[in-house]
Amino acid sequence: MPIVQLVDDASASDEVRAVFDDIRATRKTDFINNFWRAIANDPKLLARTWADLKAIMATPGTLDPLVKEMIYIAVSMTNNCEYCIHSHTAAARAKGMSEEQFMELVSVVGMANETNRLSISLQVPVDDRFK
Amino acid sequence: MPIVQLVDDASASDEVRAVFDDIRATRKTDFINNFWRAIANDPKLLARTWADLKAIMATPGTLDPLVKEMIYIAVSMTNNCEYCIHSHTAAARAKGMSEEQFMELVSVVGMANETNRLSISLQVPVDDRFK
Amino acid sequence: MPIVQLVDDASASDEVRAVFDDIRATRKTDFINNFWRAIANDPKLLARTWADLKAIMATPGTLDPLVKEMIYIAVSMTNNCEYCIHSHTAAARAKGMSEEQFMELVSVVGMANETNRLSISLQVPVDDRFK
Amino acid sequence: MPIVQLVDDASASDEVRAVFDDIRATRKTDFINNFWRAIANDPKLLARTWADLKAIMATPGTLDPLVKEMIYIAVSMTNNCEYCIHSHTAAARAKGMSEEQFMELVSVVGMANETNRLSISLQVPVDDRFK
Amino acid sequence: MPIVQLVDDASASDEVRAVFDDIRATRKTDFINNFWRAIANDPKLLARTWADLKAIMATPGTLDPLVKEMIYIAVSMTNNCEYCIHSHTAAARAKGMSEEQFMELVSVVGMANETNRLSISLQVPVDDRFK
Amino acid sequence: MPIVQLVDDASASDEVRAVFDDIRATRKTDFINNFWRAIANDPKLLARTWADLKAIMATPGTLDPLVKEMIYIAVSMTNNCEYCIHSHTAAARAKGMSEEQFMELVSVVGMANETNRLSISLQVPVDDRFK
Repeated sequence: MPIVQLVDDASASDEVRAVFDDIRATRKTDFINNFWRAIANDPKLLARTWADLKAIMATPGTLDPLVKEMIYIAVSMTNNCEYCIHSHTAAARAKGMSEEQFMELVSVVGMANETNRLSISLQVPVDDRFK
Repeated sequence: MPIVQLVDDASASDEVRAVFDDIRATRKTDFINNFWRAIANDPKLLARTWADLKAIMATPGTLDPLVKEMIYIAVSMTNNCEYCIHSHTAAARAKGMSEEQFMELVSVVGMANETNRLSISLQVPVDDRFK
Repeated sequence: MPIVQLVDDASASDEVRAVFDDIRATRKTDFINNFWRAIANDPKLLARTWADLKAIMATPGTLDPLVKEMIYIAVSMTNNCEYCIHSHTAAARAKGMSEEQFMELVSVVGMANETNRLSISLQVPVDDRFK
Repeated sequence: MPIVQLVDDASASDEVRAVFDDIRATRKTDFINNFWRAIANDPKLLARTWADLKAIMATPGTLDPLVKEMIYIAVSMTNNCEYCIHSHTAAARAKGMSEEQFMELVSVVGMANETNRLSISLQVPVDDRFK
Repeated sequence: MPIVQLVDDASASDEVRAVFDDIRATRKTDFINNFWRAIANDPKLLARTWADLKAIMATPGTLDPLVKEMIYIAVSMTNNCEYCIHSHTAAARAKGMSEEQFMELVSVVGMANETNRLSISLQVPVDDRFK
Repeated sequence: MPIVQLVDDASASDEVRAVFDDIRATRKTDFINNFWRAIANDPKLLARTWADLKAIMATPGTLDPLVKEMIYIAVSMTNNCEYCIHSHTAAARAKGMSEEQFMELVSVVGMANETNRLSISLQVPVDDRFK
């Protein structure tokens, strides 16, 4: 259950509605997912977050859009963010991620968490070569 | 400072030496980084971890090797593992990651951590569409 | 679903009942929330935790009680503790936190998580001035 | 040791210099701390992060500026971000936080981390009253 | 809700079936829990993970099997992994963990999380004696 | 570097000195490690934390003292608390933990972190049998 009301279209202020409209136009869909409806309780947080996400995720850069989604999923899995795992896995599948690729991503995330913890457990010193 | 002695070549048992040899052959370098020298205190842990890492990271699959390194870095950043950030960033640079790509990866990791926390903070319910 | 039985009033031992009575008296309410009923399975853990919480949260100090609740919420959001986010947000609202304040708290928590991760990602050295 | 070069004034591009100038003007000091010099390797990340931080932390809102710094510190402690703990504690002290207030903040952070973990350990269900 | 289909016996490939058979034989039960059915979407991940788990948890070593389960639970509580807390607590109870022992484990996990956070909050330097 | 001054014996208040004396008497050593000297900046936090630690770790219960230290280490490794890993590993070695036992503990911590992350990644639903 959410801690705040989800802002629906009818109760959205003009400031919120403008962001919702841009999300719809950018993503070419009428669907606004709950994340945006939740943070819309603070219109400035909504505007700032959407502007940042668009700049990072939807603007062509040096990384493939699907690679960026997979990095997003890896972070979400490591943070144990249920919502984020579901929403970004859906986004990655929509961008063409196969089930084999997803399971290979999961393998890397599991392995990385194991070896991260081994390094931390033994307080392994960083090799000079890596500095 | 490490919690255990790092195992050098001179003091390595035959079981450890066999893994070190395979790391050198697989990576085509004489360099064995401290992570392996630390977990070599448990030869079975060393053998198992290297076998798993080779299977996941060095075997051709459905993901590009550089993409897998970037996922590994994203997890290491999120787990705050100093050793792992250094070693896997070095590995990714060796595989051709540019500084622009690295900074874009960092942007995604930062943004993902922010929106993960916003989702968690507001306990946003997963949209039916994502299930 | 809880891992242990929640201790109801009827089955509470004298030691548990004494703590429940003090919670009720201190908070001026008959309501005992599930957290206390769960840890009551270890009466000493219950007594110790309640004594500590009362000392830290309910005793006048140098920080405003509402500020302390907001710090508690920030930790709970960062730890992804669903129960804690719900219970301490309820407590903060009862102490007068407005929805605008809550959303501003959420903004700070989100931003802090992003810049924390950027600092960690780039392994930024602490400035001499801060030491 | 940082993963990237820290951008000094001499090598800063015009885009980076403009942000550095605004940081100096806003904070009324010539000092630019390492965090900004590190993320300056991606001028857009620098510009975006500074704009967001200024909007959240330096713009009058419903929370006291010192309270916002203490929330920032609580998140940084929970995330184990050494740089962030040092820089934001310095900022809070500059805004008037006393040592008694700091130690009381630390007490709350410690207690919250304990009870968060107890709630998670026992999988305590959220009380209906809190929903 | 899972992100992938759980693999049931009817749809299991020969490679998956062989692992399921070994889990059944090793554990002397017909029951295969959902964790294995989920990772079975990647048969190699399934085989590798089961081989590692059997080597670590089911092979006699220097630690008592119940102690190893309790260490597993402590990690799972600290990572906030609901599934893992439930499955490993069930396993530990099956190996003879009493409710008093479980609550004492919970006390240690809570206390460790508090003092961990105090150490991190104050950036306590490691004593020379511990190095 | 610590965020606060470490309290040495000369500058300790009577309240702090009383706790230091009890630590020395309980542990049968003159050595007070830095953790206690750091939290001594808040004498009530010092007194409360020592009382809790003594009750949990030094009082005979249903778990072996060495097992409790190993649980403490597992939490500290998972939380990436450098100070805590060093101090509790030293304590466990003093209580008789062998290097083989330590490495086996590290193996379990690594494995648990991997399977925790796999469970979270795939959002595996808890089996009815475990509830």
